[in-house]
Amino acid sequence: MSTVDREQQVLERIDRARRARARVKDERITLAHGAGGKATHSLIEAVFLEAFRNPILEPLEDQAVFSVGGARLAFTTDSYVVRPLFFPGGDIGELAVNGTVNDLAMSGAQPLYLSVGVILEEGFPVADLARVTDSMARAAQAAGVQVVTGDTKVVERGKADGCYLNTTGVGVITHDLRLGAGEARPGDVVLVSGPIGDHGVTIMLARGELDIEADLGSDTAPLADLVQRMLAAAPGVRCMRDATRGGVATILNEIARASEAAVVIDERAIPVRTEVRGASEILGIDPLYVACEGRFVAVVDPANADAALDALRAHPLGAGAAVIGQVKADPPTLVLLKTEFGGTRIVDVLIGDPLPRIC
Amino acid sequence: MSTVDREQQVLERIDRARRARARVKDERITLAHGAGGKATHSLIEAVFLEAFRNPILEPLEDQAVFSVGGARLAFTTDSYVVRPLFFPGGDIGELAVNGTVNDLAMSGAQPLYLSVGVILEEGFPVADLARVTDSMARAAQAAGVQVVTGDTKVVERGKADGCYLNTTGVGVITHDLRLGAGEARPGDVVLVSGPIGDHGVTIMLARGELDIEADLGSDTAPLADLVQRMLAAAPGVRCMRDATRGGVATILNEIARASEAAVVIDERAIPVRTEVRGASEILGIDPLYVACEGRFVAVVDPANADAALDALRAHPLGAGAAVIGQVKADPPTLVLLKTEFGGTRIVDVLIGDPLPRIC
Repeated sequence: MSTVDREQQVLERIDRARRARARVKDERITLAHGAGGKATHSLIEAVFLEAFRNPILEPLEDQAVFSVGGARLAFTTDSYVVRPLFFPGGDIGELAVNGTVNDLAMSGAQPLYLSVGVILEEGFPVADLARVTDSMARAAQAAGVQVVTGDTKVVERGKADGCYLNTTGVGVITHDLRLGAGEARPGDVVLVSGPIGDHGVTIMLARGELDIEADLGSDTAPLADLVQRMLAAAPGVRCMRDATRGGVATILNEIARASEAAVVIDERAIPVRTEVRGASEILGIDPLYVACEGRFVAVVDPANADAALDALRAHPLGAGAAVIGQVKADPPTLVLLKTEFGGTRIVDVLIGDPLPRIC
Repeated sequence: MSTVDREQQVLERIDRARRARARVKDERITLAHGAGGKATHSLIEAVFLEAFRNPILEPLEDQAVFSVGGARLAFTTDSYVVRPLFFPGGDIGELAVNGTVNDLAMSGAQPLYLSVGVILEEGFPVADLARVTDSMARAAQAAGVQVVTGDTKVVERGKADGCYLNTTGVGVITHDLRLGAGEARPGDVVLVSGPIGDHGVTIMLARGELDIEADLGSDTAPLADLVQRMLAAAPGVRCMRDATRGGVATILNEIARASEAAVVIDERAIPVRTEVRGASEILGIDPLYVACEGRFVAVVDPANADAALDALRAHPLGAGAAVIGQVKADPPTLVLLKTEFGGTRIVDVLIGDPLPRIC
């Protein structure tokens, strides 16, 4: 491509971004803006990135990485508004600890310290709050982190759903690997650490709006130990992302775009529990878009793929790990699914919000 | 006091704490639990401290201090639920940046990085969100910090008041002073960095529920630079606290208790703007309990008090600084106010919540 063509392309891209930004700013917030998919990305780019742009924020990874006084730190935040607060396999407290621990772990950091910000609704039973904090304490212990600071606010009755949480975490990075969504290369192998969609489907069923019973619980779990074991066995890991909002499909799209490569996955290879598959069919959603809270995707150098898979499978939290696809050169920035019936279709990022407030 | 008496005292204290804990756990959350006063303290001790107890959390300062890889860090979190979102002199975004910057500054840290967690209500105008983030960006620039990571959640219409924010901050501590609410000693001088109560009264008036007009704006401001200048001039600073929820009265009580000393303040010496005094009288509240967002209290070695006061007054944000009292040995753990009329009364921590959701 000539220099003139490239310049023309850049100008067109800037113009498209500008128009998209103006469009977003005219809007009102919808549930889709919180779903982790297309609308969330547009909002983040148009509003947050535009306001705060700096080299640490710009990669838009799930954690910031910076150095202070010689220490390389990872830093990440998440708010939790899951409904209901208590569900099979966990509760908002356990989720808030594991979710933030996992965002640190995805940078290869050792999670160390958490802050907890609580927004309580007037009338919320203190006993329920104690149940949440006890659950957080157990999860923190299991993940090897300490809650070291906090804040409590109260809003009037009706202005929150009992309890919203924010956890922010600090971890230390001691490896010197180069990890990031933009690091995937053609030939790399795509792994998932276990069956997908358990958390999202569990939450939908726990709301009782559907008349489905399933023997299913959230997969919420702390992944730092599992990640450390995989990194020790397979230093050729290019990137890791935990498959929360937007599910596996959305993070594969993030990787494909950031790496300007194709991600081709094989439908038959993707581990999905029968209960999740069944409930997803009734809900009319694709498990690829359903959130997990204890599963992650790793892109690994093919020379290390077997070692990575073995390390995952040797750990209780990675027992169901599988190779689900490969990175290819073409078509760049797209995710393709080879279907069970031998066809191929494009897997886009999540559009809309079929499963609101699952974390 | 004999050893037996002391042991008896300790046992009684434990028993009282146990009964208080049981009492709190039976309760439901009230607005008072979020006011920063007596109810907030009981809740934090009974629920959060009990669940998470560790040596870093235990001092219950406004920030945690720990070391990672040789760097000494300060870490703090605050959620913001102020109503209205926009008010004279600031908005929720500016407040969220300055509040967290100030909690870092009170440990003598240099604030470095912030995370931002946003909980949005469905239907909130994106233009208002952009106004908030632009304001945060300006405040971050003024305070010399960078927003490096974030998270966005959306809840259904009616489940939040437009926008709740959480900011969590990391700063670096390079001084080797020993600072803390428990460090005050008899003879120390108590300073305040400027007139008190502007923020809380501004918010109450901005709600328009009272038919009062006053030429008043929030005092929200980043205090790190002011603090650094004071510490450079007066290394004998024992402790600093910004006078947010619960006001000056509540933090003086925290200092008196932690130091097991008396804090005696002089009503005539406390700087309060005429507008704040007038509005407080109409509202039926004492300015000593009204939140500031750009003022702090410092307890200083008497040998350094003049230097500290001069350093404060030389800075635009400390121009109204004043000596307001002294630390004494007796009566331990109490705050006493010498009134304008020559009497003396005990100033307790805030009870109830006369000014809900001011930050």
